[in-house]
Amino acid sequence: MRGWIIPIGGKLLAPSILDRFVALSGGAAARIAIIPTASSEPDMGAFYERVFQRHGVTQAKALNFERRSDCDDRDWLEWLGGATGVFITGGNQLKLSTTLGGTPVGHVLRERHAAGMHIAGTSAGAAYLSEHMIAYGAEGSSPRAGMVTMCAGLGLTNRVIIDQHFRQRDRLGRLLTALAYNPFAFGLGVDEDTAAFIGPDDTIDVMGTGSITIIDPTNVSFSSIAEAEPGEAITLLGATLHLLAAGASFNLRTRLAVATASTTSPHDALNAALGDSLVTAE
Amino acid sequence: MRGWIIPIGGKLLAPSILDRFVALSGGAAARIAIIPTASSEPDMGAFYERVFQRHGVTQAKALNFERRSDCDDRDWLEWLGGATGVFITGGNQLKLSTTLGGTPVGHVLRERHAAGMHIAGTSAGAAYLSEHMIAYGAEGSSPRAGMVTMCAGLGLTNRVIIDQHFRQRDRLGRLLTALAYNPFAFGLGVDEDTAAFIGPDDTIDVMGTGSITIIDPTNVSFSSIAEAEPGEAITLLGATLHLLAAGASFNLRTRLAVATASTTSPHDALNAALGDSLVTAE
Repeated sequence: MRGWIIPIGGKLLAPSILDRFVALSGGAAARIAIIPTASSEPDMGAFYERVFQRHGVTQAKALNFERRSDCDDRDWLEWLGGATGVFITGGNQLKLSTTLGGTPVGHVLRERHAAGMHIAGTSAGAAYLSEHMIAYGAEGSSPRAGMVTMCAGLGLTNRVIIDQHFRQRDRLGRLLTALAYNPFAFGLGVDEDTAAFIGPDDTIDVMGTGSITIIDPTNVSFSSIAEAEPGEAITLLGATLHLLAAGASFNLRTRLAVATASTTSPHDALNAALGDSLVTAE
Repeated sequence: MRGWIIPIGGKLLAPSILDRFVALSGGAAARIAIIPTASSEPDMGAFYERVFQRHGVTQAKALNFERRSDCDDRDWLEWLGGATGVFITGGNQLKLSTTLGGTPVGHVLRERHAAGMHIAGTSAGAAYLSEHMIAYGAEGSSPRAGMVTMCAGLGLTNRVIIDQHFRQRDRLGRLLTALAYNPFAFGLGVDEDTAAFIGPDDTIDVMGTGSITIIDPTNVSFSSIAEAEPGEAITLLGATLHLLAAGASFNLRTRLAVATASTTSPHDALNAALGDSLVTAE
């Protein structure tokens, strides 16, 4: 069974999000690898080592893959291969794809995730998780041809395209543009201080102080983007929009959104089994 | 075993390419579905029905999925599901992704291909085949940030990013740009009147009068695109370039290129088994 995929929208404050990530990863026995590659701040890795120590993790280690040649480091690869959870920091998602893409690090992350390792990422780290990554784009809520630049990401799933700082940076337009090119994947916009916990069963539930935006393109009847000139406004008909705050959930297979309170979320049984270290968002 | 993936670079003249596609699909017993969705010419489907009849196929049928609502047509879906080979015509690849993406047609194509159905596409039809599709971009041989627009394609493989009319439209720069964003997939540039036959074993061999360009990013040591402004020239170090004419081959798993003559290509045993209808390119 594959591990959880946990995109976080940036500006993480709610301690419950990391508490749950740690609990999923084994609690006090968790072994968390931190990948600060996206960041230009040299002490970002050490900062998150301390954060995870405060969350009760004794084995938290920053692996600073700064250059592509770093991605062949045997000791770091071995540590990464033995991790139960991986946390990818914010910064610039293109630093992640250009540094890790096609290297043994990308390979180990995909392989170990398929075998059950959980991977969380915040901000740029969230954008990088899926197969189709938003590299950059313009602000605004209306889609326009060419307003988004996409490329290949880490590839943990191709069912969602993730965007972050979603409400705060007015990114609905660029996420709709990404879907207008091919209404195949779901759009997943994650607000700051908010996380989408995507379970191995492809159910997403929400924690944190903001909301997540799901765009379901299944019933899109028309997209004009094939005929639009760059910068031109486009027509897109029939997208389904869900906004989910903490406790609500959405299943990517059945396409069913459920607005239950967090105390009855579909992951509650699992959460309960993880024990006392887990604090759900209220 | 999955079916063959056969991108053709456009301006198809060499009859040997379609002969081999037909032979792979069952020869006289082949059942070829033609998808003319990319084209704006209303008789494109009928044109290819006649082409395949001249190649000895009695069951060749154009399924003109023009609108997304056409993609629910039960009769067409049933015919598509029973096809042994699918041929996707040229035109505009965004008409393919916007019309078929996320519909039952896309689903049937992926599922049946995984079970052994062969899928060929020319020009826009070639670009559409892989998971990461080049939607459009600028001409020129040097990569520049933002010179290529990518989105999700059909998704038969994520190991290659395909570009077509490759030499004729001077597209090395935009394909290098696509790889510079994430040096994970191989770049596969296909010249006009040339086909890359990608076997179920991930070996590619070449037929036709042009060549295919393989860009292997495995040893890329540096890409500056994370820091580049849109339009700015980028640094990309260590990409391996192979140019393959008819008879040469490349394996996507071992990364080995072989410059054998067509008479000793790795697919020759298979080709021979397909019988007399097959004419190899000379």
